[in-house]
Amino acid sequence: MRQLTPADLNPAVLDVQYAVRGELAIKAENHRVALESGQHNLPFSRIINSNIGNPQQKGLDQPPITFSRQVAALMEYPPLAEIVKDKWPSDVLARAKELQEEIGSIGAYSHSKGVPLIRRSVAKFISERDGYPADPEDIFLTGGASAGVSLLLNVLITPNKTGILIPIPQYPLYTATLSQFSGVALPYHLSEPDGWKTSLEEIRSALKNAKDGITPRALVIINPGNPTGSLLDLETMEEVIQLCEEHSLVLLADEVYQNNLHRPTTHPFISFKKVVRQLNSPVALISFHSTSKGVVGECGRRGGYFECTNISEEVRALLYKMVSVGLCPPLSGQVGVDCMVRPPQPNDPSYPLYKKETDATHAALAQRTKLMAQRLNALPGVSCVDSPGALYLYPKLELPDAVVHEAEKQGKSPDTLYALELLDSTGICVVPGSGFGQKDGEHHYRLTCLCPGVEEYVGALERFHTQFIEKYGGL
Amino acid sequence: MRQLTPADLNPAVLDVQYAVRGELAIKAENHRVALESGQHNLPFSRIINSNIGNPQQKGLDQPPITFSRQVAALMEYPPLAEIVKDKWPSDVLARAKELQEEIGSIGAYSHSKGVPLIRRSVAKFISERDGYPADPEDIFLTGGASAGVSLLLNVLITPNKTGILIPIPQYPLYTATLSQFSGVALPYHLSEPDGWKTSLEEIRSALKNAKDGITPRALVIINPGNPTGSLLDLETMEEVIQLCEEHSLVLLADEVYQNNLHRPTTHPFISFKKVVRQLNSPVALISFHSTSKGVVGECGRRGGYFECTNISEEVRALLYKMVSVGLCPPLSGQVGVDCMVRPPQPNDPSYPLYKKETDATHAALAQRTKLMAQRLNALPGVSCVDSPGALYLYPKLELPDAVVHEAEKQGKSPDTLYALELLDSTGICVVPGSGFGQKDGEHHYRLTCLCPGVEEYVGALERFHTQFIEKYGGL
Repeated sequence: MRQLTPADLNPAVLDVQYAVRGELAIKAENHRVALESGQHNLPFSRIINSNIGNPQQKGLDQPPITFSRQVAALMEYPPLAEIVKDKWPSDVLARAKELQEEIGSIGAYSHSKGVPLIRRSVAKFISERDGYPADPEDIFLTGGASAGVSLLLNVLITPNKTGILIPIPQYPLYTATLSQFSGVALPYHLSEPDGWKTSLEEIRSALKNAKDGITPRALVIINPGNPTGSLLDLETMEEVIQLCEEHSLVLLADEVYQNNLHRPTTHPFISFKKVVRQLNSPVALISFHSTSKGVVGECGRRGGYFECTNISEEVRALLYKMVSVGLCPPLSGQVGVDCMVRPPQPNDPSYPLYKKETDATHAALAQRTKLMAQRLNALPGVSCVDSPGALYLYPKLELPDAVVHEAEKQGKSPDTLYALELLDSTGICVVPGSGFGQKDGEHHYRLTCLCPGVEEYVGALERFHTQFIEKYGGL
Repeated sequence: MRQLTPADLNPAVLDVQYAVRGELAIKAENHRVALESGQHNLPFSRIINSNIGNPQQKGLDQPPITFSRQVAALMEYPPLAEIVKDKWPSDVLARAKELQEEIGSIGAYSHSKGVPLIRRSVAKFISERDGYPADPEDIFLTGGASAGVSLLLNVLITPNKTGILIPIPQYPLYTATLSQFSGVALPYHLSEPDGWKTSLEEIRSALKNAKDGITPRALVIINPGNPTGSLLDLETMEEVIQLCEEHSLVLLADEVYQNNLHRPTTHPFISFKKVVRQLNSPVALISFHSTSKGVVGECGRRGGYFECTNISEEVRALLYKMVSVGLCPPLSGQVGVDCMVRPPQPNDPSYPLYKKETDATHAALAQRTKLMAQRLNALPGVSCVDSPGALYLYPKLELPDAVVHEAEKQGKSPDTLYALELLDSTGICVVPGSGFGQKDGEHHYRLTCLCPGVEEYVGALERFHTQFIEKYGGL
């Protein structure tokens, strides 16, 4: 018999690129194993995974919200209620009881769109956030936002015929999933000098550049941005919706960082759902949210949802059919969504602790983001938009020509060379800008603002940068 | 702007069919809502969801395994250990501690292939089951077996060019996923008169019938069978492996029911991994397992794994890249996998209860399957293979011509008409055979053997069947 080789496989799959867990992450994992074994010559004692927005990972240890975890423990083992009834707050016990009565065992498949009660909780959360009603039938719970994005792209893309507008830089889930389903990326550049503002001109020009035979079907907006952390203002959002109307584009609004705001007074989050309703627009909108980010940070739970706005019942039935093949999203993620959208309220016994925990997480992230941006901006050849939202910074690097030549020799992008040397020198793992997209000749990298001990961490970054620039002959 | 309609969407997605949650399940859900509202004329008081293998759903209430749930509760809220340390068995506390030390928070993303410790647990389980070594690097944890099957079909199928051999009848995940990824189904019939035996002749003839330009790439075997409950014997397995060698086929072994055996002495489960190793065969094999079935029955947890055998490192790296786009399987499912493959052992404090719980579940399922098969076989025009494994029966119906004519008039298959009238009369929801596949002119339905109160339940089935046959003029 012949052995199975990559040449036998789906060519679309061979094309998929996903930098967040690519070369850098694999090398970091190898270093981690070497560190654990004790047999190594590495000049650092631990790996700092700044490559992925994973707040609760070892070494970062953003604490989970106690309320949500106590509810989750009771869902796993209902007889526990007898043991903790005088120890845990009454609202925890009441929430678990309510969910158990609706769900029964969390070991059972739920409705494929998610538990009806939890979809009603999500609809209430949305209507209170926006001041416009939301229908639980328009809500699909998902295994994280990624599962929802993947479903929608699969449904919207007719292979090799459909164009999807994506921002550059973007979260590589989009390019990876476009490759997987043979969609055509129609990239539009965000404007770095304007704090990564979304430019309508850029979107219009991307539409014009779409090749013959490619139908632009949807526009992806990531707000707050990943990797940029930027927030769209109301005027831009209105223009975006107007443009989607003109071109009959489905608006895919990735809003998973809506609760990561560092300067909410000057840079608030406004949902696309709200603006679509304010304008009374007929635009087809899918909005994604997740339990993985915000102050919840429960990535491993795989919880999330999307809301359909102005989507016909026929198309919604098709989405339902597709999610039913996958049976249902993880119940533990669904319970996590319920706790995210229905957190303790001011008079509830769990509220003081909830407030303290979430305030601390918000404050730490905002403070670290600010400090890191300041320090990075002070480095020669580095400029960095001070993100008002999300979990990341995306500094731009000016690099000596010798770096560009050396990278070419190694068959790598210059920012990959930078990131690899950073990892080997400091144990800090970041993702090169080439994984997110940037203009030709530019160099960036993305790092998360989740690492505690930021003084030490930024100090290591600074020392590395200075040495690296020197090593390659200076700027 | 133009509204989004199904005509704008991926035609492959429009073609997807998934009967388990199709017309019958939707109608059952509507009846359930009507029953809850109190406003209805339905001649029954509750819906019995016999359409889906969902042991822990409300009304079935197969109890979860206490050991696994206590570990899960501790993983959700580690400080609980202080509270329960004198109340819960020491092996529960030790397992949770071991997993916490490895994983950290279950709110963090894990390695995309799953937590290394849990992959080692799976490898140990497999090597003890089969007597041949297993490599943790060959194990991918997944969000249920469905997620793994979907991944593999996506990777193996070049759209419109790749043929996949699937059994008829089959679990409709396969046909649905083939449609989704534009694969070509190469159906081979199982032999009902021989207890749904897998026939090599049928597979060979399906290979011969593959159209020009279609490359047969993989063979799906479901063992124990769904919906048939049949088990492959060693000789057939050896022949299957031989045939895969001859035709360079990847063997996709869906073994999720490996722990649902009603007569293990005469009908044991043998894994394909074991036989491949016994034969020292180079066949590329992917074996799927799940926490959803067996005596675990934790469907909502979305846990499972697949093992790669004779898959090159290059192809494995491709699979890793694809799972990394989805970030990681749910941690709650991963912990469930650990408890499934490392259950309490005879000298552990949790063992007596574990033994009692799992014995009771095995016994109830075997007893119900036997009784249901006997009673169904006693009905006029019904014949039913007494399944030695899995969770289902798949009775064959002889139906009066008038049923066939009436069904034709309604644009439905005759077994769909039967199933719809069964639902409307009794509240029992089954899936018509047309959803799984059958020979032309044959009629079947699948029902689960999970419903308690089997006397009453089978009584209702019998009364309905007799009336239905009479209504349409008798046999």
